[in-house]
Amino acid sequence: MNFRHLVLGTDTYIPLKNRKWTKYINFDNAATTPPFKSVMEAINYFAPWYSSIHRGTGYKSIVSTELYENSRNKILRFVGADIENYTAIYVKNTTEAINKLSNRLCKDDKCVVLSTSMEHHSNDLPWRNKFIVDYIETDECGRFSLDDLEKKLIKYNRKVKLVTVTGASNVTGYINPIHQIAKLAHKNGAMILVDGAQLVPHKKINMDGYSSYDQIDFLAFSGHKMYAPFGVGALIGPKRFFERGEPDYKGGGTVKLVSRDFVIWDDPPSKDEAGTPNLMGVLALTAAIDTLEKIGMDRIEEYEYSLLEYANERLSHIDGIELYCNDTSNKVAIIPFNVRGIYHEKVAQTLAEEAGIGVRSGCFCAQPYVQRLLKINKDDIEKFRKNPDLKRPGMIRLSFGLYNTFEEIDCLIWALRKIKNR
Amino acid sequence: MNFRHLVLGTDTYIPLKNRKWTKYINFDNAATTPPFKSVMEAINYFAPWYSSIHRGTGYKSIVSTELYENSRNKILRFVGADIENYTAIYVKNTTEAINKLSNRLCKDDKCVVLSTSMEHHSNDLPWRNKFIVDYIETDECGRFSLDDLEKKLIKYNRKVKLVTVTGASNVTGYINPIHQIAKLAHKNGAMILVDGAQLVPHKKINMDGYSSYDQIDFLAFSGHKMYAPFGVGALIGPKRFFERGEPDYKGGGTVKLVSRDFVIWDDPPSKDEAGTPNLMGVLALTAAIDTLEKIGMDRIEEYEYSLLEYANERLSHIDGIELYCNDTSNKVAIIPFNVRGIYHEKVAQTLAEEAGIGVRSGCFCAQPYVQRLLKINKDDIEKFRKNPDLKRPGMIRLSFGLYNTFEEIDCLIWALRKIKNR
Repeated sequence: MNFRHLVLGTDTYIPLKNRKWTKYINFDNAATTPPFKSVMEAINYFAPWYSSIHRGTGYKSIVSTELYENSRNKILRFVGADIENYTAIYVKNTTEAINKLSNRLCKDDKCVVLSTSMEHHSNDLPWRNKFIVDYIETDECGRFSLDDLEKKLIKYNRKVKLVTVTGASNVTGYINPIHQIAKLAHKNGAMILVDGAQLVPHKKINMDGYSSYDQIDFLAFSGHKMYAPFGVGALIGPKRFFERGEPDYKGGGTVKLVSRDFVIWDDPPSKDEAGTPNLMGVLALTAAIDTLEKIGMDRIEEYEYSLLEYANERLSHIDGIELYCNDTSNKVAIIPFNVRGIYHEKVAQTLAEEAGIGVRSGCFCAQPYVQRLLKINKDDIEKFRKNPDLKRPGMIRLSFGLYNTFEEIDCLIWALRKIKNR
Repeated sequence: MNFRHLVLGTDTYIPLKNRKWTKYINFDNAATTPPFKSVMEAINYFAPWYSSIHRGTGYKSIVSTELYENSRNKILRFVGADIENYTAIYVKNTTEAINKLSNRLCKDDKCVVLSTSMEHHSNDLPWRNKFIVDYIETDECGRFSLDDLEKKLIKYNRKVKLVTVTGASNVTGYINPIHQIAKLAHKNGAMILVDGAQLVPHKKINMDGYSSYDQIDFLAFSGHKMYAPFGVGALIGPKRFFERGEPDYKGGGTVKLVSRDFVIWDDPPSKDEAGTPNLMGVLALTAAIDTLEKIGMDRIEEYEYSLLEYANERLSHIDGIELYCNDTSNKVAIIPFNVRGIYHEKVAQTLAEEAGIGVRSGCFCAQPYVQRLLKINKDDIEKFRKNPDLKRPGMIRLSFGLYNTFEEIDCLIWALRKIKNR
C-alpha cells in the first residue's frame, strides 16, 4: 500500500545544517498537508475557464457556476450528510466555520455551550464571551469523558444549546465518540458541532449517524489538511438552521433584495457566503475528495494507523522518550512526545537541521489542553503571563499523512537516538 | 500595447447556441478576472514546497513562513502604505475585509459611519445595525458629492468615526476623490476606509497621500479582481488601530497565551488572521502584483482608459443604446447600459449565446445605487418585495481588463447592432 506518488513534493531535497542535501520528511500533516498532484492538475486544467459565478451570463460563467454549485453535493456525500436537508457553506478554514457558527447560534448570551478540555483554540475562543461556556473534562491521558458530558448536560438542565467537540484531537490524536456524544446531546435538547479538521482527512465520516438521535448537526473542516491547500473549508449543517437570522458577514451575494430601508436575505448557503467565492479553492477541495474516495477512506485509515502503531512501538523502546499515555487505540496518526532533558523546540530544530525532518513543537494552538497534559498549574501559567520571555513547556508532535512511510519513521528514530545520546 | 499574452484563457473557444465555436470574450472583469500566467507559474513552482507556516520547524516550513511574512511588505509598498506603521491583514476577499473592520471599529453603537449612495452591498450592509449609518449623496449621474460629505460631517459634529467610500464604483466606474475625502474626514475627526476592489487593479494607489491630512487610513481589496483568483485579499490599516481590542474571529494563530481563564492576543496582523492562512492565495496575489508592477500601473490605466473611450464612443453612436450619463472622465473602464425595449437579462444572454461575449446584467450587488440611477421609487421597490417573481429593472455592464482589445469591442458593437435591429 503506497500512496506516496499521489502527493506533490515527496521527493524534494533540502539542505541540512552541514550543507549536505537530503530528502525532506514532513511529519507536520496535522498543521497542513502538501497538495495532491490531482489537485494541481485540476486547477491547471480549469484555470483557463475560471470566470465569475452566479450572475455572470457568459459561457465561462455558466461553466464556473455549475462547477461551484454541483460541488456542494459532492462535499455533502463525502461526509454522509443528508443532501435534501443539509447545506455546505464554503469558508476559508475550520476556524472561520466555527466563528461563523458562533455568530449564528443564539442571540441570547444565556445560552450554554459545552466545549471540552481537549479543544484547539479555534473550538474554544470563538465561544467565550458570547455564551455561558463550560468544558467537559478529560481523563489524565487527555481522553474525553462521556460521564462528565452527561453530568454537565443534567446540570444545565436543557439550557445547553450546543455541544462542540473535536472529532480527533490535534495534540493527542484521540478520536472522540461523536455519535454517542450526539445522542446524549440530542436527548438533552442540545445540538452538536464536530470540529472535523483532524478527523475528516483520516477517517470516513457519516453525519447521518447510525441510529436514532446520533446524527451530527454541524461539521467543520478544512481543505488544507486534506491535500487541497487553497484556502477553502466547509461548514455543514441543516438548511433550516441557516434559513433563520442574519448572516454574520454581510455583503455581495448574501441578499435577494436591498433598498436603503430593508434587506431580504438570500437562501442558504449563499446567505452565509459573503463576497466572491474562492472557486479555485473549491475545485481543489473537490479534486482532493475525488482522490481520497478513489483510494478509499478505509484504506487510508488502516495505513495511517499502521504508521502510528509502528512509530509508537519504536519510540517506546527509546529510553528517555516521554510518550503521553502510551495508548494507540482509537487515534488518528498523531503522537506527541518529549525527549527527557532536552527542550522541545531544540529537539524539533535539531530534527530539521540534522535529519531534514519537519515536525511541530510547542502547544499546537491548544494551550489549555497541553497545560493539562503537562500538569502545568495556575501559578506557572501566571509566571508565563508576567514574563513572556520565559521558555514555555510544550511537546514535539508527529502527525502522519497517507504518503508517509515506515522508512521515514526509521529515519526519525535514528535521529532521535542520536539527539538523545549526545 | 498588448498585455493579452500575460493572461490565461484569452484564446479559449466556446460553443455558441448555433453550435459554431468562437473565441470567448470576457467583459466581466469587475466581477472577477482570469489568472495571469505568471500567477499559475508561481503556484506550480512553489507547490512542492508548500508547508505549514509559523510554528513549523522544518525547512519547508521556514521557506513557507518567510515567503508569507515577506509578502506583506510587497503588498504595503504596492499601495503606497507606510511600512513602519501600517499592516496588511490577509482576508479572503474585500467583503471579509470590510466586515472585519466593521467588527473592529467601535464598540459603541452611537458611532456614526458615513457610507455613500454609490456603494457595493459589501460596503453598505456590514455597517447597518451596528452603527448610526448615513449615506453621502450622489448627483443624478451617480457621482460622489464632496459638498454633501462636508455637510454631513458638520451635521454629525465630530461624531463620525469613519467615512467609507468606494475607490471606484463597480456600476458606473466613477473614481472618487479619495484624498480630498480623506482630508475632509480627518479635519472632522473621522477616519477613512477605501473599498479598493475596483480601483487597486486599475490605477496606482498611494495610501500615504500627497499632502497633510490626506492619507488613507484603511484600504480593502481582492486578489481575484487583479488576476490572482485564489481566495486572498487584504485589509490594510494602521498597526496601532489593530493593536487595540479583540479580533472578531478568534482561534488558532491569534494568541500569545491562553489559559482557561484568560487570553493574551497576539500582535497585528496575526491577531486578525484566525486559522491557517491561505499561503497559496498570498503567493498568487504577490505574483500578480509583480506582473502588474512590471507592466506599470500607469500603462494599465492608460490602456484601459483607451478601451473605455473607444467603447463609449462606439456605443454612443448606436441608436437605442442608453448610456447613463455619457461621461468618461475620471472613470475606470466600466460602462453600464441598456438596450431600449429589450430586457437587460435578455441582452446579456443573447450576447453570450450568439457572440460568445460574457457580461453581467442586473444590479451588480449595488441595488440601492442602481435603483437611484434608474429612478426606481419606493413604491416600485415595495412591489418587488411583495412579488419576488416580478422582472426587476437593471443594466448590462461592460468591465474591461488589461487584456481586452479594440477588436473585442468591435465584436460587441456588431452583436449589439444585430440584437437591436432584430
